[in-house]
Amino acid sequence: MRRAVLATCWVLLGAVSVAALTALPNVCKTSVVTESGKKYRLAANASTVHWGYFFESLKPRLVIPSGSEVTVEMITHHAGDDPDKMIKGDPGVEDIYKWGASMNIPTRGASGQGDGVHVLTGPIYVCDAEPGDVLQIQILELVPRKNPRTGKAYGSNAAAWWGYQFRTPFKTGKAREVTTIYEVVEDADGAVYALPDYQFTYGNTTAYKGPLTASCVPKSGSIPDSNVKVPWAQNNKFAPNYDIPCVNGRQQFTGYAYPGVLTQHPTGTEDYSIRGKFVVPANLHIGNIGLAPKFKPAEAVNSIPPLPTGGNMDNRRIGKGATLYLPVQVAGGLLSMGDAHIAQGDSEFDGTGIETSITGRFKVTLHKKAKLPKTLRGLNFPLLENKNEWHIHGYAYGNYLTELNPPGQVFAKGASLDKAFEGVYRNARDWLMSAWDLSEDQAISLLTVACDFNVHQVVDGNWGLGVSIPKYVFRVGDKKRYKPAVICGSSTPV
Amino acid sequence: MRRAVLATCWVLLGAVSVAALTALPNVCKTSVVTESGKKYRLAANASTVHWGYFFESLKPRLVIPSGSEVTVEMITHHAGDDPDKMIKGDPGVEDIYKWGASMNIPTRGASGQGDGVHVLTGPIYVCDAEPGDVLQIQILELVPRKNPRTGKAYGSNAAAWWGYQFRTPFKTGKAREVTTIYEVVEDADGAVYALPDYQFTYGNTTAYKGPLTASCVPKSGSIPDSNVKVPWAQNNKFAPNYDIPCVNGRQQFTGYAYPGVLTQHPTGTEDYSIRGKFVVPANLHIGNIGLAPKFKPAEAVNSIPPLPTGGNMDNRRIGKGATLYLPVQVAGGLLSMGDAHIAQGDSEFDGTGIETSITGRFKVTLHKKAKLPKTLRGLNFPLLENKNEWHIHGYAYGNYLTELNPPGQVFAKGASLDKAFEGVYRNARDWLMSAWDLSEDQAISLLTVACDFNVHQVVDGNWGLGVSIPKYVFRVGDKKRYKPAVICGSSTPV
Repeated sequence: MRRAVLATCWVLLGAVSVAALTALPNVCKTSVVTESGKKYRLAANASTVHWGYFFESLKPRLVIPSGSEVTVEMITHHAGDDPDKMIKGDPGVEDIYKWGASMNIPTRGASGQGDGVHVLTGPIYVCDAEPGDVLQIQILELVPRKNPRTGKAYGSNAAAWWGYQFRTPFKTGKAREVTTIYEVVEDADGAVYALPDYQFTYGNTTAYKGPLTASCVPKSGSIPDSNVKVPWAQNNKFAPNYDIPCVNGRQQFTGYAYPGVLTQHPTGTEDYSIRGKFVVPANLHIGNIGLAPKFKPAEAVNSIPPLPTGGNMDNRRIGKGATLYLPVQVAGGLLSMGDAHIAQGDSEFDGTGIETSITGRFKVTLHKKAKLPKTLRGLNFPLLENKNEWHIHGYAYGNYLTELNPPGQVFAKGASLDKAFEGVYRNARDWLMSAWDLSEDQAISLLTVACDFNVHQVVDGNWGLGVSIPKYVFRVGDKKRYKPAVICGSSTPV
Repeated sequence: MRRAVLATCWVLLGAVSVAALTALPNVCKTSVVTESGKKYRLAANASTVHWGYFFESLKPRLVIPSGSEVTVEMITHHAGDDPDKMIKGDPGVEDIYKWGASMNIPTRGASGQGDGVHVLTGPIYVCDAEPGDVLQIQILELVPRKNPRTGKAYGSNAAAWWGYQFRTPFKTGKAREVTTIYEVVEDADGAVYALPDYQFTYGNTTAYKGPLTASCVPKSGSIPDSNVKVPWAQNNKFAPNYDIPCVNGRQQFTGYAYPGVLTQHPTGTEDYSIRGKFVVPANLHIGNIGLAPKFKPAEAVNSIPPLPTGGNMDNRRIGKGATLYLPVQVAGGLLSMGDAHIAQGDSEFDGTGIETSITGRFKVTLHKKAKLPKTLRGLNFPLLENKNEWHIHGYAYGNYLTELNPPGQVFAKGASLDKAFEGVYRNARDWLMSAWDLSEDQAISLLTVACDFNVHQVVDGNWGLGVSIPKYVFRVGDKKRYKPAVICGSSTPV
């Protein structure tokens, strides 16, 4: 998911000393490397997550050698949409959400105010990773996180102002923001699906109609800032009619505020009529997984727009059984992840998936620049592989950090499927030529007759499409019939 | 596929008498209806196809009652790309391609000049069909048409000037048009795939660089017109350096001319290096299948831009096992079809699929307006159903014939994925509300978390996207796991 308005602020972040990182290679040479093969775990709590940004100078929370298996807990930044179901009684989640007055997370967003939105676990430093290398991340398992108090898992689909539905007239009534809470259910045979539980609505959009029509545009430092105290433990909840300071005066903010803020449902809007209306097939995946991009050593990068190093791709194929390849731009790679979804269709239409806390298990392998296989040479976009397909990512701006100045313009200029289509075509064409020795004309014909272009997301500032390339096409002479991956539809996990 | 430049001409077509059609209901009441259950066949030849248009006043070539099974031969309009392989020795195809001097097809395009491009077999008049009804077309079988002389089937993928690759710089060399000829292969176990045979190239694009940069734009009456004699039997082939009259002077046309014209390969450009490079999984489908739209009784409608009544949807899911629902706008519906593909990926990127002559078998059922099931009420777009999904079509202009004046503007204004995305969203949202009693907010969440948006085509003037809606979501309480349709990827036919 995205948040655009605040994200145009790019402020220096001085929380971490760059010099402190120079000791890391020594760590790799001693204790860590000798433990190769060890299984690592990175639990999520206030000290192991960063909120709303990637940052090349952030202190690693875990150091692992190539070839390691690592388990990572990911906490949804939408847990505040129903704190009773998704926060209360889970110590790790409670720890993360007790920000505000205490602010026990050093910085909450790129500017210290929350430019981006995702709770990202990490970063993980991979020994020997250097710019020009490629990091391979195999997703071995994804498991919904059950609340230890209730034994249940829930997720939130927030149809908020950044969703596509605000770009075209509503069919009924006034424009409104509606959050749907889903329960995650696992059958005895292991099938996972989501059942809609209830909805609640921010119906009064008079004071705030979203980025296109806002009468009082919130700016950095307005919502929420350190004047807004919302620690969960104090029951001081963010809610409609709560006064929000605005740079140019005061503003009564009545809409969906900010992922990560505890939400007090607008009085009386809970609507349970959605129960029993439909059931959602699960396709557990990771919305935001990426390496720190090379930008400026003292400047963090917003977590919302996707990057060459991955990040907020919101591609529902990044699930169990898939392998992700990301180009390394900084020492150690600095892998972080979060924004997990129990389910999402291609487009992430209304602004979010079913945002759910999920724990993943991964195998992380480093490919050195000098020994890259042809499929990874010159990689300048996130590449995904599953059992039966290669999958190319493309965006309105392949690298908005270098193509736009200031980069924050991406939220206005990158909201285009037409631009993203050109981007993904060029990535796919170039990859087919480089990895498979096709001429340009051969690549164009193959893309046309055998490959599928699909919409990843229309909500992350830098809109994205993908191309699925069946591996079958290169198995010339193999007489097996082509079988698309089970996860080619919105399916249960393989 | 599309062709834009000529298509802006909308000329009266007086070839068929409207009055002659009034006798049809009587036909239905007598001989035809009493044959209900009979299996019909519509062979393709010069007298059973119309070329480049839909037309409400066209004389039906077949009259059938609802519930009939009908076999229809479809001939590719790209057979001229390799006449030896795709025309010679097949009497039906030869008959169709012997136009030109003899012009034994009354009109070749909407204006009599070839505004549209598709060879469409039909129209088929369905008894009792009236405006407001919905026609259901089940695709029972699709079989590639083998040339009786060679026993083989071939197809053509023409990467011509209307393809997307001309909208962005080529990576290597100058912009060029490359046609790839594919052989269709069927294994002993029934698996069907396509093998690239060779390519040929129109390399000199100096005189003609496509619609965006043409120095001398061809207009109606220029290429080809009655001054250009290209009957196959006379070996008078259209080729580079062939003089083409231009309205504002003469023009040496050196590019891909027109589907339906016999192509003499530019000397020495045949390139066989593509053999063995890859294999294409087949997904036999129909690119263009639709009913005559209600427009003007004496004016035909270009066959290229897709319509509420279907037409040139170029959706690779319109294959065996799928059922298409089209709203009836004129008496009898007037069903026509062509533009069959042995394979195509989502986007039809370079301008065409693998264009192949295919014979289809269908069951045609009429749903009367007064007794429509909820899924078909108020239908104003083509709706597709397969075993596991509903599929919604949407376009930059839902009905460009009524939204644009003149309608030919669609080729300039409709070339936008961003517009098409808005169109398909609104169709899907409205259908979910109407067919499944969802509120708007429920429909928005369901579309986001369970449904996939995919690119159908970026080459047909009126660009199109689709949304796949799993039937699973409405089987609340059914504990079966969700299985996406086998044809959700570029797959072999089910």
